[in-house]
Amino acid sequence: MLGVCYYPEHWPCERWAEDARRMRELGLTYVRIGEFAWSRIEPEPGRFTWAWLDEAIETLGQAGLRVVLGTPTATPPKWLVDRHPDILAVDKEGRVRGFGSRRHYSFSSRVYREEARRIVTLLAQRYGQNPHVAGWQTDNEYGCHDTTRSYGPEDLRAFREWLQARYKDIDALNEAWGNVFWSMEYRSFEEIGLPNQTVTEANPAHWLEFYRFSSEQVASFNRMQVEILRAHSPGRFVVHNFMGYTPDFDHFKLAQDLDIAGWDSYPLGFTDMDVLPCTEEEKIRYARTGHPDMAAFHHDLYRGVKPRWWVMEQQPGPVNWAHHNPSPAPGMVRLWTWEALAHGAEVVSYFRWRQFPKAQEQFHAGLNRPDFEPDVGFFEAKQVAEELQNLGSLPPSGPAPVALVFDYEADWVFSIQPQGKEFVYRDLVWRFYQALRRLGLDVDFVSPGADLSPYRMVVVPSLPIVREAALRALQAFTGPLILGPRSGSKTESLGIPPSLPPGPLQELLPLKVVRVESLPPGLWESLEWGGKTWAVGVWREWVESRLVPEARFADGKGALYRDGNCLYLAFWPELEFLQACLAQQARAAGLSPQTLPEGLRLRRRGPWVFAFNYSPEPCLVPAPEGARFLLGGREVAPYNLSVFKG
Amino acid sequence: MLGVCYYPEHWPCERWAEDARRMRELGLTYVRIGEFAWSRIEPEPGRFTWAWLDEAIETLGQAGLRVVLGTPTATPPKWLVDRHPDILAVDKEGRVRGFGSRRHYSFSSRVYREEARRIVTLLAQRYGQNPHVAGWQTDNEYGCHDTTRSYGPEDLRAFREWLQARYKDIDALNEAWGNVFWSMEYRSFEEIGLPNQTVTEANPAHWLEFYRFSSEQVASFNRMQVEILRAHSPGRFVVHNFMGYTPDFDHFKLAQDLDIAGWDSYPLGFTDMDVLPCTEEEKIRYARTGHPDMAAFHHDLYRGVKPRWWVMEQQPGPVNWAHHNPSPAPGMVRLWTWEALAHGAEVVSYFRWRQFPKAQEQFHAGLNRPDFEPDVGFFEAKQVAEELQNLGSLPPSGPAPVALVFDYEADWVFSIQPQGKEFVYRDLVWRFYQALRRLGLDVDFVSPGADLSPYRMVVVPSLPIVREAALRALQAFTGPLILGPRSGSKTESLGIPPSLPPGPLQELLPLKVVRVESLPPGLWESLEWGGKTWAVGVWREWVESRLVPEARFADGKGALYRDGNCLYLAFWPELEFLQACLAQQARAAGLSPQTLPEGLRLRRRGPWVFAFNYSPEPCLVPAPEGARFLLGGREVAPYNLSVFKG
Amino acid sequence: MLGVCYYPEHWPCERWAEDARRMRELGLTYVRIGEFAWSRIEPEPGRFTWAWLDEAIETLGQAGLRVVLGTPTATPPKWLVDRHPDILAVDKEGRVRGFGSRRHYSFSSRVYREEARRIVTLLAQRYGQNPHVAGWQTDNEYGCHDTTRSYGPEDLRAFREWLQARYKDIDALNEAWGNVFWSMEYRSFEEIGLPNQTVTEANPAHWLEFYRFSSEQVASFNRMQVEILRAHSPGRFVVHNFMGYTPDFDHFKLAQDLDIAGWDSYPLGFTDMDVLPCTEEEKIRYARTGHPDMAAFHHDLYRGVKPRWWVMEQQPGPVNWAHHNPSPAPGMVRLWTWEALAHGAEVVSYFRWRQFPKAQEQFHAGLNRPDFEPDVGFFEAKQVAEELQNLGSLPPSGPAPVALVFDYEADWVFSIQPQGKEFVYRDLVWRFYQALRRLGLDVDFVSPGADLSPYRMVVVPSLPIVREAALRALQAFTGPLILGPRSGSKTESLGIPPSLPPGPLQELLPLKVVRVESLPPGLWESLEWGGKTWAVGVWREWVESRLVPEARFADGKGALYRDGNCLYLAFWPELEFLQACLAQQARAAGLSPQTLPEGLRLRRRGPWVFAFNYSPEPCLVPAPEGARFLLGGREVAPYNLSVFKG
Repeated sequence: MLGVCYYPEHWPCERWAEDARRMRELGLTYVRIGEFAWSRIEPEPGRFTWAWLDEAIETLGQAGLRVVLGTPTATPPKWLVDRHPDILAVDKEGRVRGFGSRRHYSFSSRVYREEARRIVTLLAQRYGQNPHVAGWQTDNEYGCHDTTRSYGPEDLRAFREWLQARYKDIDALNEAWGNVFWSMEYRSFEEIGLPNQTVTEANPAHWLEFYRFSSEQVASFNRMQVEILRAHSPGRFVVHNFMGYTPDFDHFKLAQDLDIAGWDSYPLGFTDMDVLPCTEEEKIRYARTGHPDMAAFHHDLYRGVKPRWWVMEQQPGPVNWAHHNPSPAPGMVRLWTWEALAHGAEVVSYFRWRQFPKAQEQFHAGLNRPDFEPDVGFFEAKQVAEELQNLGSLPPSGPAPVALVFDYEADWVFSIQPQGKEFVYRDLVWRFYQALRRLGLDVDFVSPGADLSPYRMVVVPSLPIVREAALRALQAFTGPLILGPRSGSKTESLGIPPSLPPGPLQELLPLKVVRVESLPPGLWESLEWGGKTWAVGVWREWVESRLVPEARFADGKGALYRDGNCLYLAFWPELEFLQACLAQQARAAGLSPQTLPEGLRLRRRGPWVFAFNYSPEPCLVPAPEGARFLLGGREVAPYNLSVFKG
Repeated sequence: MLGVCYYPEHWPCERWAEDARRMRELGLTYVRIGEFAWSRIEPEPGRFTWAWLDEAIETLGQAGLRVVLGTPTATPPKWLVDRHPDILAVDKEGRVRGFGSRRHYSFSSRVYREEARRIVTLLAQRYGQNPHVAGWQTDNEYGCHDTTRSYGPEDLRAFREWLQARYKDIDALNEAWGNVFWSMEYRSFEEIGLPNQTVTEANPAHWLEFYRFSSEQVASFNRMQVEILRAHSPGRFVVHNFMGYTPDFDHFKLAQDLDIAGWDSYPLGFTDMDVLPCTEEEKIRYARTGHPDMAAFHHDLYRGVKPRWWVMEQQPGPVNWAHHNPSPAPGMVRLWTWEALAHGAEVVSYFRWRQFPKAQEQFHAGLNRPDFEPDVGFFEAKQVAEELQNLGSLPPSGPAPVALVFDYEADWVFSIQPQGKEFVYRDLVWRFYQALRRLGLDVDFVSPGADLSPYRMVVVPSLPIVREAALRALQAFTGPLILGPRSGSKTESLGIPPSLPPGPLQELLPLKVVRVESLPPGLWESLEWGGKTWAVGVWREWVESRLVPEARFADGKGALYRDGNCLYLAFWPELEFLQACLAQQARAAGLSPQTLPEGLRLRRRGPWVFAFNYSPEPCLVPAPEGARFLLGGREVAPYNLSVFKG
Repeated sequence: MLGVCYYPEHWPCERWAEDARRMRELGLTYVRIGEFAWSRIEPEPGRFTWAWLDEAIETLGQAGLRVVLGTPTATPPKWLVDRHPDILAVDKEGRVRGFGSRRHYSFSSRVYREEARRIVTLLAQRYGQNPHVAGWQTDNEYGCHDTTRSYGPEDLRAFREWLQARYKDIDALNEAWGNVFWSMEYRSFEEIGLPNQTVTEANPAHWLEFYRFSSEQVASFNRMQVEILRAHSPGRFVVHNFMGYTPDFDHFKLAQDLDIAGWDSYPLGFTDMDVLPCTEEEKIRYARTGHPDMAAFHHDLYRGVKPRWWVMEQQPGPVNWAHHNPSPAPGMVRLWTWEALAHGAEVVSYFRWRQFPKAQEQFHAGLNRPDFEPDVGFFEAKQVAEELQNLGSLPPSGPAPVALVFDYEADWVFSIQPQGKEFVYRDLVWRFYQALRRLGLDVDFVSPGADLSPYRMVVVPSLPIVREAALRALQAFTGPLILGPRSGSKTESLGIPPSLPPGPLQELLPLKVVRVESLPPGLWESLEWGGKTWAVGVWREWVESRLVPEARFADGKGALYRDGNCLYLAFWPELEFLQACLAQQARAAGLSPQTLPEGLRLRRRGPWVFAFNYSPEPCLVPAPEGARFLLGGREVAPYNLSVFKG
């Protein structure tokens, strides 16, 4: 199904009915409203102007649209900030982050929690049972603009309380963190500070706990809202709109309180801004399409975060916030929409109905232009709506053949202690994902500890801290299991495990990482594997093991270890190597990896196979003979797609 | 005429008479003094030591020199700052900008306005009618070191007052800025903050008004000084010394209060530091000459700012403040001087008489070395003085054939909202200027709304906000009129015009820009024009129009539109394209564009043609047969010039 | 002799005896302990827990080890900082540098001086006469993490006092600094601020005095500790562990109060992080060995700082703090150890005994792994210990043939006023050093004013401020004396000398530098010398002299001047030129410069010649026929060494 984001407060109320009519005509079902409208709901402390919102909801609902109502907590009004300046967050350099844009609050501000509770309660009470309100969105894009972590007095207070609750005893904390090192020992929780603005790097355990704390603050702020909404709005779903790769808080944990994970998909901006890193060549080649794995990565990630998921904001044209904002190639808005659906999205909702010709996002295209004419995206959305109508309901998605174990904490661990500048968790996961997708394999992201039994093959790009549940799930899995470097390398408190890495994973693989090295750019090791020589940079490990290595570095040391179904990579893999290695493993798992043409990607949804062509040249789809094409044909034009039954 | 900047306070008074004598001997007429001497005039609060300055003026005057006296407000003394710390400016990051160098004040400080008024009044009263004082310089290099904008409490107060005066009603402001977006609405002017230190970007309208306010604060600070000087010093001119490209305040507006626009010309430092951007190759090729259009651009700009203009500070040798400070090639000090005169300067004044061997600028050469010997520049200046003597008075300059509409506000608009990282107003203007100058065409810079009737051709690199007067002037112009991208794209409040861009310019050209794209480096579009294929990067627009485009992009969309005498470029033009396109237009205007050898530039002053050779090889001057050479000949040696009557 | 750094507080006391036994078994003599243990010595204000330290010292001593006890002043505990927040330093941007890592104090804090005095006195009283305590280390790595300079209120107070003591009279200061420039004159010392956070650059004389002040604050803080230790611990030596190139304080002056200069040698981290700058190619080539001159440069520097010197911390494997932390090539720990001994180290002490699996340095290898097994470094240290045993005591080192005059103040002068971005003192010294070492010459670093009579040849990369003693020493020297650019170019107050540069050196060379130029990258001058053409970039000078230049630039101006034994380089020399030029000079001095294979370095200690092979290929040692090899042979394997008697 399709939807759109709409801001009735931006337009004269006389236009609302016409807008609603045209939305329905276009084939839209959902309309999200209200998430930045606090100053219009409560223009002065305690004075409320509900009438316009009542009317907007009624007008949309009467036209047959289902409303998703946003809580406006991402933008507290100025009067509130002036009354309670301690709402504001403080950046890592100690500067207050002021009013004048959005997300100007700290998750730890007690006052702001109360104010958020107040406004959400009032909204939920008023509209919770409104027949046109289908569901709720909490806040907007948690973490955007680096707002997960704040370094002010309220944050310090809350962090101390959080540590006290977690450790109980200050000696336990000192011991866990190793504070004897450099005389960092504390006598009480009241002595602990925030980890920023130290002379040189703070204790990595200090940082990790602060990251955990900050992540939980987001989740508890969200949970507070969800509880109010559930209390006052029975039968409505609750969604939040996540963003492109935002590791600062644990989305798996936050999403436990949601019904639906939404996410905001801007493939061009993400490609330009390295949300997932692209080469210079890719940035040019895919400037108008987005990298072919960019949206898909996130679809699969957020489907892992929550089985029910939406694209809450779909890029409909050029945006305003990247360094460079080209126009999508003709057809891409349709392609992106279909791709989201192929990956399992329930709803794709365009952002936004009409370009607003003022303020920060005036260069952000909508389905309609600011002169009220339909824009390019309008027509592409319309085509999807018609195609959806013709095709009927899509078959349900089963589990993918491959699971990728993804861990937010891993991102924190390696960003706190990279040990080699280029060792970035995001980049490693992105490599694994790309390698699998180039092989034509569908991928499910799962959190550590998730049941792996539905899968034929499991990849773990890296899992530094392995807890009991994760260990048990990995142990129980019998298909090919590929473990990346630094897996099991850290204790809960970010120490080195007493038995050395891979720590708990030694139950799977009898080996010990006795030394690690990070390599400067340009220093290449080599290893022999599968009859070829592969370059290795960035990272390598020295392993002691009774196992005979399956591949060795040029100096004879082991690089690749296998024990039963488990494969351990004692190095940072290049993409080409990964592709070859994962192909081999996939074949061992009974899968049929393919070598897809550059820019072509496949995705299955039940018996249907979707093929997306991100390249500027036509592609032949690897469909079996006699495949039945539901959309398009065997040759897919540039920026187009085919759907067939295999 | 020639002049020099002199600091009698740096040298024993015994030397002043000898210095003055040698200045006259060299052929200098003017001597600027006093602009940093506050601590010597008022060493303690209320205690004045005028005697030395009385004597210095008398000594210089007696030698036959005309004194330009500077007001010392660029350097308030320490005792004043200690008494009134709120004089100090605050930077964008919230840090107070302290005492210890220069320009340590905020234009909005009420205390500082009073103190500046006090010292300027005292100076003007004492020397206003002194027969040796020919004129006054206000302050020194407004805006230098990023001092136009300040972010402290005094600035906030003044900004609120300014907004109140401008908008009267807070709702008008909310509406104009589109503050409903992101709940940014204010209930009163007292709620408005400064636009720095917001969580993400502030409302661009907020920034634009802050830029306008800051620009006006400079102008009103200057006006206050000018009014005092006019009151107490009748018959004397008032000048200020502007700098290389400094867009932060509107020089056209400030100069309305001046008699003469001065500017400080440092071609080598500007080339090294990208005051106007140079390629790496140009930086090396022109390291010892400056880019051949660097000084000329500014001469033409400041002649546009004020018909009477001086080079107030002329680079005489290596400077101290660029990353790299090579020596000018032999002859360049003479060449630069002649070039300024050719472009219409009344006076070229060297900076400075003698290199001062202490403090911040000790590596800045002067006409004399710190050991009191003459330096290279001394001899080159002497040669100019003699040549001037021989040639007699120069013929007056008429208007140039080409006008370039230059707009400070345009720089603010695009720096606040580039939408594509490489879309920089300065760079666009610089391209237009270079293209015209490579064609041998003289250029006048004019402000929007200026009378265009004296011109044969008009170029508008971009004019985003088109006000009534500018529109009328453009409409009235009948010769070739070339409008660059994003012209007419913004309302007064930095919104998108209701009729879409080019907004008011739709009265000239029946077209509508329905989409804009910014392109990442390396993404090249192409267009066919004039029988050639041209690469287009950075920016393109999608146009709807009943006009048949004169050139199209490879995808068939229109790139270049003409209606009558008007040409609209719907893209960011490369320099080579501009050169070809402007040559065509110039021919249409009845001009005779040429293709000059690299490094050669021409400039006319009445019937005289000046040819300047910036290249390391000799050049042939494109003089008509039988031209009479007043200086040099048909072949111009490297770093040399010729003057002929055509 | 060999030693190790050990942290008994990190390990259960039950393990100490075993650790000590294994240290002795390995052949270690010294063990450094205690330098970060304040929180374990005084866990609460005034409550002391000496027992563990008593026991640790006793255990180590009983095993036959000699203890070097560190004063714990680099890491004041949290309770102390909370009680006296003015202990903390303030960074250049005005931010307090908080607790949570190390070196969180300002050298100017009066409270901290008292607290440091208190804890050092208590330690010295308790252990000063302990028979196992062989000596003391003061604090740890002064200046690390940019802690020499602090910008807080205590620093300002102390700086004013220091200036008052130095200048007595404020007018003298104003005159010396040239404060008349820009009205920077002060009426009293109380008006002077710190030189940071000015609008544009502060007076360079202001900076230079602040640098001198800051350097002296470190020295006086150290002296205070030394005096206590000498009073309470007679017969024990006092050492401090300096770091890789740390110009912020004058090590020559500080070391006057020490018995031994220690330094911490991390060749791989230094190479990766450009402690001395390496090309990208060298960074890769020497990623696992360190640049072949990296450790040697520092050995020679610190031997110059103090004739008795140790490597207090020797890298034993990968470290944690560089951008990239590869493993040393096999053999390098041994090679580095021998190299230090060859250069004259009394003791090489490994850092650290065992890798600590928690906190900031958990990735820093030790001689033992965190799982208590010996690591690679252990075995290489053991081999050295055995070889030392076999070889008996090493012959004493005499003076090297070549002296390099090194000046910390020169680093300050050029960093404050580079005048050309690439003019970096460190880089210039590094070039001279490399050129000499590639010629197989041993080098002594000496401070300006040191007796030069022991040397055959003297190089002065640059000495901008030449004081009387330095001038006399240079005048008295009769061998080849090579003076680099900008020597003698500055007065004590950082002005230009009245007679122009080289100022006082004009007594050696009759020349005058009348102009200087800095050149942008890519702008190459050339000069002819020795039958070849050499490229010159970065810097050149214009010289007036009655001398006929020995080499000229392409424009005919002099580049190289010789008068008697003195050679003056009026330009920034490239490494290849230096090598040729210094070879010529060395031959003139009767030395026999060689052209060593890349990566091979020689060092003499009495009659013994050590040859170190840093390259990945075997090398032939240029040993005379019949040389007797004490270690290795004529062919040296990669990462190996030979020792022969010539």
